[in-house]
Amino acid sequence: MTSTSDFARLSINSATTKKWTLAQVVDGCVNAGIPAIGPWRDRVEEAGLDKAARLIKDAGLRVSSLCRGGFLTAPDAEGQAAALADNRAAILEAVALDTRELFLVVGGLAPGEKDVVAARRRVADRLADLVPFAEENGVRLVLEPLHPMYAADRALISTLGQALDLAAPFDASTVGVAVDTFHVWWDPELKAQIARAGREDRIASYQVCDFNMPIAADPLLSRGYMGDGVVDFATIGTWVRDAGYTGDIEVEIFSQEIWDTDGNTVLSTVKDRYAELVLPYA
Amino acid sequence: MTSTSDFARLSINSATTKKWTLAQVVDGCVNAGIPAIGPWRDRVEEAGLDKAARLIKDAGLRVSSLCRGGFLTAPDAEGQAAALADNRAAILEAVALDTRELFLVVGGLAPGEKDVVAARRRVADRLADLVPFAEENGVRLVLEPLHPMYAADRALISTLGQALDLAAPFDASTVGVAVDTFHVWWDPELKAQIARAGREDRIASYQVCDFNMPIAADPLLSRGYMGDGVVDFATIGTWVRDAGYTGDIEVEIFSQEIWDTDGNTVLSTVKDRYAELVLPYA
Repeated sequence: MTSTSDFARLSINSATTKKWTLAQVVDGCVNAGIPAIGPWRDRVEEAGLDKAARLIKDAGLRVSSLCRGGFLTAPDAEGQAAALADNRAAILEAVALDTRELFLVVGGLAPGEKDVVAARRRVADRLADLVPFAEENGVRLVLEPLHPMYAADRALISTLGQALDLAAPFDASTVGVAVDTFHVWWDPELKAQIARAGREDRIASYQVCDFNMPIAADPLLSRGYMGDGVVDFATIGTWVRDAGYTGDIEVEIFSQEIWDTDGNTVLSTVKDRYAELVLPYA
Repeated sequence: MTSTSDFARLSINSATTKKWTLAQVVDGCVNAGIPAIGPWRDRVEEAGLDKAARLIKDAGLRVSSLCRGGFLTAPDAEGQAAALADNRAAILEAVALDTRELFLVVGGLAPGEKDVVAARRRVADRLADLVPFAEENGVRLVLEPLHPMYAADRALISTLGQALDLAAPFDASTVGVAVDTFHVWWDPELKAQIARAGREDRIASYQVCDFNMPIAADPLLSRGYMGDGVVDFATIGTWVRDAGYTGDIEVEIFSQEIWDTDGNTVLSTVKDRYAELVLPYA
């Protein structure tokens, strides 16, 4: 039997219940006894920032993170200025929503570009541009390594080790990293790099969902409920726990099938799977 | 203008002209002035091993590699014995075809398995089992890191560094690694690991093809002609050259569109793209 306290660290990322408005996600979490949410900015914008913040606060929920800033690889001055402006806005939204953790999906190659080394250098440069503003506002920029199948168009950070290298020049309270099981389960360095992330005090988020096989025709939608794919939650969860992480555990699933399922049913399944596969190692 | 000598290192992997029999690939290469081929075992088997060897030799072609052995992750004694038998057969086929380089695609998780650490340990164990027989026969086992999108079902070796670590206990003349641009272009450690592979004298093959975006609905078929995707052939080619590799450069493209194109047209396009994008850095 599970109890309310078992779900004390569980958070629902709003992308998991994509068809729900923010108000619906909030209601769903309250009804399900889930104490935290990780909203995407589009859902916050629809609700209006102040109203969104009030809605979440009045419901007694925690905001585990805000998704997402990033897309920092523009090669031209105009694109770079726009990216910085958007990320500064995201930092202020994180403040308004009372979360310290702002996810960054750093971006891929510019159109026609092939030079990953140069594109990654631009990520490092823009990160350096953003850090002072994040620090002033008490927000942590969370570098998320994405699975290498998204390297070209979404994130040229593909491993946790690379994210930690990129974070290294900055204080751990201002630049952190995310461990998302979907993105990193395959990494032969994962154990060592999770331990390193713990030592360096940079684990800002632990996100769980499964990597379903075969890969979906739209590779963005190949995620599944914990237990439906190939991820070893016992092993990765133990590594994250042993690294000292005690924060929220956020469930973020992009899946057409799950999006087509009633949101309350989704939350119920998430809780079951969390209790079975994640909680014992948390 | 290109000359015959420009293509002295070019090899066509038989998967690129999938609809051709081995005899047709051989004829196509001879007619196109391409001096080497990398056959797959199914094409060799169709032709018959002795006949295949004679066909290639009589045409004056080199065999750059044989594709492929591997699939070493069976958890049960029977599966392991079958895998070892199949790989020993592949070693003898390589000998008969007069190539030293036998590609290994090491295999993914067993059905229902989630423990990548244990599955990788089985790869290392089976590799150790195979090495003496490979050594006796003068064949090099070529560990091929595959893109992490194939980690679950095809190869739990995902990076060049990991392949080199796995190769480390064995002599470089018996266990080597492949650098396939499609699989490794995204790796943040690529420059350092190619240099290391050169220092350790383990680069057994340089395979070129592009990584096309968006990823095809069947992710196995997302390859393209050099120049059609995101791979930076100038940079990777320079790293491979600077690592001291002077062997064959094999073109292996899985693509429904290319398979549906006349084979001679495919070879002509391959030559053009090779001359433009690969040769200047070789």
